[in-house]
Amino acid sequence: MSTERLIYLPLGGAGEIGMNAYVYGYGKPGRERLILVDLGVTFPDMDTTPGVNLIMADISWLIERKDQLDAIYITHGHEDHIGAVGHLYADLDTPIYARAFTANLARRKLDDLGLSGDVVETVSPWPEVQEHGPFKVSVAPMSHSIPESGALVIDTPAGRVVHTGDFKLDPNPLVGEPFDPVMWAEIAKDGVQALVCDSTNVFSPKPGRSESELPGEITKMIAGASGMVAATTFASNVARVRTLAEAGQRAGRSVVLLGRAMLRMVEASTETGVLTDFPPVVSVEDAQNMPRDNVMLITTGSQGERRAATAQLARGKYRGIEMKEGDTFLFSSKTIPGNEKEVSRIINQFSERGVEVVDDSSGLYHVSGHANGPDLEQFHTLIKPKIVVPMHGEHRHLRRHAKLAEAKGIASVIAVNGMMLDLGGDAPNVVEYVETGRKYLDGSIKIGAMDGIIRDRIRIALNGLVVITVILDEDDEPLGEPWCDVRGLPEVGESKAALIELMEEDLNQFLMRAGAKTLRDDDKLEENLRRVARQTAMSEIGKKPEVTVIVSRMR
Amino acid sequence: MSTERLIYLPLGGAGEIGMNAYVYGYGKPGRERLILVDLGVTFPDMDTTPGVNLIMADISWLIERKDQLDAIYITHGHEDHIGAVGHLYADLDTPIYARAFTANLARRKLDDLGLSGDVVETVSPWPEVQEHGPFKVSVAPMSHSIPESGALVIDTPAGRVVHTGDFKLDPNPLVGEPFDPVMWAEIAKDGVQALVCDSTNVFSPKPGRSESELPGEITKMIAGASGMVAATTFASNVARVRTLAEAGQRAGRSVVLLGRAMLRMVEASTETGVLTDFPPVVSVEDAQNMPRDNVMLITTGSQGERRAATAQLARGKYRGIEMKEGDTFLFSSKTIPGNEKEVSRIINQFSERGVEVVDDSSGLYHVSGHANGPDLEQFHTLIKPKIVVPMHGEHRHLRRHAKLAEAKGIASVIAVNGMMLDLGGDAPNVVEYVETGRKYLDGSIKIGAMDGIIRDRIRIALNGLVVITVILDEDDEPLGEPWCDVRGLPEVGESKAALIELMEEDLNQFLMRAGAKTLRDDDKLEENLRRVARQTAMSEIGKKPEVTVIVSRMR
Repeated sequence: MSTERLIYLPLGGAGEIGMNAYVYGYGKPGRERLILVDLGVTFPDMDTTPGVNLIMADISWLIERKDQLDAIYITHGHEDHIGAVGHLYADLDTPIYARAFTANLARRKLDDLGLSGDVVETVSPWPEVQEHGPFKVSVAPMSHSIPESGALVIDTPAGRVVHTGDFKLDPNPLVGEPFDPVMWAEIAKDGVQALVCDSTNVFSPKPGRSESELPGEITKMIAGASGMVAATTFASNVARVRTLAEAGQRAGRSVVLLGRAMLRMVEASTETGVLTDFPPVVSVEDAQNMPRDNVMLITTGSQGERRAATAQLARGKYRGIEMKEGDTFLFSSKTIPGNEKEVSRIINQFSERGVEVVDDSSGLYHVSGHANGPDLEQFHTLIKPKIVVPMHGEHRHLRRHAKLAEAKGIASVIAVNGMMLDLGGDAPNVVEYVETGRKYLDGSIKIGAMDGIIRDRIRIALNGLVVITVILDEDDEPLGEPWCDVRGLPEVGESKAALIELMEEDLNQFLMRAGAKTLRDDDKLEENLRRVARQTAMSEIGKKPEVTVIVSRMR
Repeated sequence: MSTERLIYLPLGGAGEIGMNAYVYGYGKPGRERLILVDLGVTFPDMDTTPGVNLIMADISWLIERKDQLDAIYITHGHEDHIGAVGHLYADLDTPIYARAFTANLARRKLDDLGLSGDVVETVSPWPEVQEHGPFKVSVAPMSHSIPESGALVIDTPAGRVVHTGDFKLDPNPLVGEPFDPVMWAEIAKDGVQALVCDSTNVFSPKPGRSESELPGEITKMIAGASGMVAATTFASNVARVRTLAEAGQRAGRSVVLLGRAMLRMVEASTETGVLTDFPPVVSVEDAQNMPRDNVMLITTGSQGERRAATAQLARGKYRGIEMKEGDTFLFSSKTIPGNEKEVSRIINQFSERGVEVVDDSSGLYHVSGHANGPDLEQFHTLIKPKIVVPMHGEHRHLRRHAKLAEAKGIASVIAVNGMMLDLGGDAPNVVEYVETGRKYLDGSIKIGAMDGIIRDRIRIALNGLVVITVILDEDDEPLGEPWCDVRGLPEVGESKAALIELMEEDLNQFLMRAGAKTLRDDDKLEENLRRVARQTAMSEIGKKPEVTVIVSRMR
């Protein structure tokens, strides 16, 4: 009965923006041959993931089926698409395919973790094709805010699937291939079964703008600036970095690249031939001896990252360089939602130093890398797919994108992480719900989002902690009095006496009155001591802290 | 030698947006008579103030001089101006003056904390004047996004000061007085020594828009919606709440107010006669039995506050009401920077329920309550002050505002919290730096921002915690082995053995080898145990946790 089917299963990236990981499969149900598209990360925040280093999709489903997995494709080098390659490769142990620049970055990710980059194969773009079991896969160039972004053209016995990756319709992205409507018409001409499509900017109502609109304005701005000039952007936006460097050069300034990612991206793009004409740069040491008017810094940290070059310059001297009254700092970037406070802090720190900050609010110094609402409609029309599956968006983005498609008579669906679709019919069909989730890289260990470890940290951060120590002798009688230690709580409460002493008193009272049954029973004892301490805290400081009880028995 | 002087001292609100608290003084240096303008709060966040309830200015300077303090004026009822009245009143014990609506809210703040509202005196607006020592103070109506916002006209022997409070130039704010250029020309005509002025929207390049632009669009939107309609806005924007209610009424819907603040604000504005014509409302119980098409909810929680009505509706049923596919939810509000993630979460939750969300991105359903850049210039021109002191802004706002003034030949200065100015001369003169800071309301206790309590919570949230317990006998020899308890850390590390056991083993090894000198010395012992545990954790889980060491001695 079980005929072969074409499945799509997002494990990350659908219903969120970040940690992209999409599975395609073809074959009999449960025995499909699989390919994985992208293996990205999401960044933690203090609200939900304090202390976490990186967030990745929980790909347990795929790991259990890794013998069915024939290939991993990485569409482009942004962290939300490539960032987990190093951390999850060992669990999948399957060759990685990408275009040269992306492959170069993937190998660096593996190198960083002491793994061999040999598992990464560089592929040539469309029309070159790789065969993996029932799949023929080709990487079709797409314009985006990083070089060599690629859409995947996946041919299967059930028809052609186009997986866009991240894209915009840029006729002149300055670095890398422009959006090519002729190529896409060619790809679409025999029919596309399903278009799995970037939804990031679906709410932007105007057509997107080209990277090529910026150099004129940026050049003018920098030519008009006195003192030292610095600019930040996403290091991976190599075209922008070059635009900034060229603008500096034209203004008679020597260009300095500050920050590891900036150096790494320029290096990777030069190594792979993506970038052939980057202006000469000088070292930060040389820049220190130059007149301020002759220096242009290009820095990492456009999102306010605390350790990046931008934040360090805002706080004070960084590698011998200090920005001062009359200098100019340009954010050639937008602030990603959630980073507003960090970026504001930096702008205010620059303001305190008298540095003029220019941001993207004028619209002159930044353009987005994603297709806007009208661009998506244009692409739908060009590809004429039977089905549109919105991806790379929060639920609201997927919903709006599905509506756009349906308004044009194209079948669509809101498929979030874990929803397995059969894409073989006239309309997408949900065939299974797969358990998905998140894994956190915490220090060097991967922990599950539901393990309770992070919840415990958050609780202590909100409520503070009391540690109660009680020692019982061989007869289960208290040996001395209980004592308390607190973390993250005020020392003195309403009654102006030390909180610790009041808690110790109340705990001691309790122990004196406690029956043998309670004293013998660790659980009961702990529960009661916790309750007493929390009551005292509540009446003294208006908070119920977390409590750790340590019962030592001298047996 | 010491002649009398006119001083201005921001204790909060200058160099930040929030917790406004400005002191004016007149008299001989150090012996000035003082008045305080506003006593607001700032809201905590997980990044910097986990677990904190409210943030207030540290007004120790003023408390030490409370015998010099003659009056507290509250310009309007927004939390960043009035929110700390209840919490700090007892420390100042000085009469509070405000217009009727604001006074009503101030009394409620005091009542909430069991204090008497009798200390709040209702004042009539300009030209009525109150005398406080050397000051004559009048409250001049200003249009803002809350009824009865007032600027202060403060006459002193050194000239007239205008303290704007929050304002916009709205010719038709719908509720409360419009901006009155004739009154302001009258106030300005004999010369204004200093204009202390709202800076919030200095970066907005276009003239501000009137509240009266909204009812048409909001009415049209709600008339066109099917299913249940809900809308949220700031409860204190009574004009907006009425606009929403009237739009619902015109669309044949019964209006339900959801959320304590919403009820409280409508109540306060009705009690004080600010609002005389609010449409009839129905109870949430009655609404449950009405057809969905006939119901309009107006809810608190436009900023995504987790416990407010909006967030609860987004999560599921709230007081018997549930929003569904085909319903519409309107954010008639902007998202305050820092709240983007919370608001996004809610929009996505509504999206999952099939609820259509309309936000302010079209510009049709919200206008700001603050004067934009061109409005500020217009007001400077109207008032023609000798000095402009920007307030109510982050450093970058103050800086831009000072530049605006200076560009027109008006003396200005960037005065942040703690900078005491002498405003009596032709230009502002910094005469002293006063120590300022923040106090946190944490549970029921006020703690200092620098007390280390919150820093401790943040450290545990980032790094996790290990509690080490060691018992030593009468001879300072270990009694049994040390043991560990962890909070917020993975159970198992690199070596796949239990982290706790590995730490206990390493700690025991250390204790076995430790000399008598170390074992006798609590500090040394703790320091060493901490180091050992952190080393083990680092090699096992790649993190150095916080450590609490508890040494019990059987002496």
